[in-house]
Amino acid sequence: MARVSQEHLDARRRQILNGAARCFARNGFHATSMQDVLREADLSAGAVYRYFRGKEQLIEAIVTEVLDAIRDTFESAAAQTPPPPPDVLVGRVMTEVLTERSGLPYEGEESLPRLMIQVWTETLRNDRLSATMRQGYSRVHEAWVGVVEAYQASGLMRDDVPAEHVARTLIAAAQGFAAQQALFGAAPVSVLQDGLRGLMSMGRQKAG
Amino acid sequence: MARVSQEHLDARRRQILNGAARCFARNGFHATSMQDVLREADLSAGAVYRYFRGKEQLIEAIVTEVLDAIRDTFESAAAQTPPPPPDVLVGRVMTEVLTERSGLPYEGEESLPRLMIQVWTETLRNDRLSATMRQGYSRVHEAWVGVVEAYQASGLMRDDVPAEHVARTLIAAAQGFAAQQALFGAAPVSVLQDGLRGLMSMGRQKAG
Repeated sequence: MARVSQEHLDARRRQILNGAARCFARNGFHATSMQDVLREADLSAGAVYRYFRGKEQLIEAIVTEVLDAIRDTFESAAAQTPPPPPDVLVGRVMTEVLTERSGLPYEGEESLPRLMIQVWTETLRNDRLSATMRQGYSRVHEAWVGVVEAYQASGLMRDDVPAEHVARTLIAAAQGFAAQQALFGAAPVSVLQDGLRGLMSMGRQKAG
Repeated sequence: MARVSQEHLDARRRQILNGAARCFARNGFHATSMQDVLREADLSAGAVYRYFRGKEQLIEAIVTEVLDAIRDTFESAAAQTPPPPPDVLVGRVMTEVLTERSGLPYEGEESLPRLMIQVWTETLRNDRLSATMRQGYSRVHEAWVGVVEAYQASGLMRDDVPAEHVARTLIAAAQGFAAQQALFGAAPVSVLQDGLRGLMSMGRQKAG
């Protein structure tokens, strides 16, 4: 029996996840069958079931991968002292995750946001997926809390508001912006960056 | 034939929409049947079909009603010169819409957010609902643009960023915060308000 290289296994896994992600983004989780995934990935049932037992495992793997990518991109973007301001940081992470990420190739800029809101809905009635989401979210949130504490420690932000609340708000702005992309079509990430800059200027003007 | 008062008709319509909203928030749009709505509203098929031909019309009516409530609450909260700062405005609107709104009584604080993300997903493959959402969103967006322009005109916010982008960002923060409520459980609106206050303080510290 021929020994299959790890590289080959990884490439095959990638091919399956990409196909599944395209199907889910296009038609949603429930309207996608394993047959659709096989066809999209151009693989036989045997080849796919060797890696994933079903749609549940596919969506789990995709969500974990996307959340890990967000966290990794965020952590490397934030690795400065003091960290870049929120508009720069959010812009860098969203641009990389939405448009340049080498992992899952999506069809068009709204594709990942479309997948995102479908996953959210699925989360409401899938406890396992809900746990994966919570875990991934809390890791991104923790990383943001560290950044906000650094803003506060270096006097860039008032320190009488809980860092957790600012972190949650910044993630909310990114999530909501992505939801808008899914609902109303793609918009450049610079729109969100402008908006954050406008907000960030409000304290200064008030003090003047 | 007895003449039915407008008051009676309105109350009956309300009863149907409330039942449907509870069903959709709990089980999603697709897993809810008209039978479920009849049972939840405690009405006969004849009574319900007189008002709504099916689930599509019910979800349309609910979405229109919620978006109108957001816009009305927002417009009355913003009717000051200069308008209240974003943290106050967002807090007032979200509190009223999420917890005090007299229209649809939901079960628990996450109920409206749960309904929201299910409607988003449904929007992806329902053109009519998508058009309703776009229309409702653009009216809320217009109202926010007016408020941001007032901040800029009165020197409360830098005026070299497009008001449309700041409006979009503020709506994104509210949408993302609501999505978090659906995904991770209720959190007080003051969390979002703290977050906005933190962000708003960043320009001032930098200038100091």
